[in-house]
Amino acid sequence: MSYDEFYVKSVIRSLQDWPEPGVIFRDVTPIFKDPKAMHMVSDAFVQRYLDSDITHIACIDARGFLFGAIMAYQLNLPLVLVRKKGKLPGETIHQEYALEYGTSAVEMQTDAVTKGDRVLLFDDLIATGGTLLAACTLINTLGAEVVEAAALIDLPDLQGSTRIQELGIPVYALLAYEGL
Amino acid sequence: MSYDEFYVKSVIRSLQDWPEPGVIFRDVTPIFKDPKAMHMVSDAFVQRYLDSDITHIACIDARGFLFGAIMAYQLNLPLVLVRKKGKLPGETIHQEYALEYGTSAVEMQTDAVTKGDRVLLFDDLIATGGTLLAACTLINTLGAEVVEAAALIDLPDLQGSTRIQELGIPVYALLAYEGL
Repeated sequence: MSYDEFYVKSVIRSLQDWPEPGVIFRDVTPIFKDPKAMHMVSDAFVQRYLDSDITHIACIDARGFLFGAIMAYQLNLPLVLVRKKGKLPGETIHQEYALEYGTSAVEMQTDAVTKGDRVLLFDDLIATGGTLLAACTLINTLGAEVVEAAALIDLPDLQGSTRIQELGIPVYALLAYEGL
Repeated sequence: MSYDEFYVKSVIRSLQDWPEPGVIFRDVTPIFKDPKAMHMVSDAFVQRYLDSDITHIACIDARGFLFGAIMAYQLNLPLVLVRKKGKLPGETIHQEYALEYGTSAVEMQTDAVTKGDRVLLFDDLIATGGTLLAACTLINTLGAEVVEAAALIDLPDLQGSTRIQELGIPVYALLAYEGL
């Protein structure tokens, strides 16, 4: 069973006006309900990183946890979590980032990664890139390097992937949707 | 590599007074950072359900997503998500449950499961059982049956597993910690 972009796109559900008017939300939950699509997507990422020198996978709360965990299991790599503020126990560092209105923050445990670690950063979707950029800052602050930021879906018109690449971090997405 | 309870317990981190004074928090994040422990735990669950007649795995936001996704991938089963209110797009149903102070609510998409489905419900930890019981109600409301509620850790003194069993739903946990 090889990766079939047409099949995967047929499983993703596009919802008009969610979470607010004018937005088309790309709902990946049907992929997890479809074992064939789940395997196609997971295996595409696993094959991409099978011969890499990545030492850790960092995944973003909460949908990033799903493929992140499968990839870590299959690649036999440590998985570390990037979560909203206040969700991780122990000693943590946090990084704020701007939202359309106000700010939010993500957090990692200070022992999640360290100097010399080569981290693959994963989320389900790249929009404006705010969360992923904040996660890159956290990983760098802990002394580690983000070797790639990966996602199932990129929304290139929202410029998130461009912003990440401008920091010198390669971006990989399985799928792109033009428009907002 | 067979399951080694002593090893897995040695990886789980116990934190005093988090998230509030008097509580010992069992931090499972180090398990995901340790590929050997991650494989031991995942494979123990996969082996338990390999010959079962489960049709779906339902997992609870957000730490439940991690092992839930690995189990669904390995067992080739559909994975459906139980999330905090407002996180799932499309048509949803929600169920409130009591917290120590106030209430919270979990939500599922209405097409997540249906009549005749046999669901394994998974979360990382069973404490008072409030979230898991609310999830059972949602699954039953959609016409499906919870054939087992499973977790990595049970805190039996908090009575959650007892409450779930009183509804006639079997409970399985890999590990138990006595005391609060």
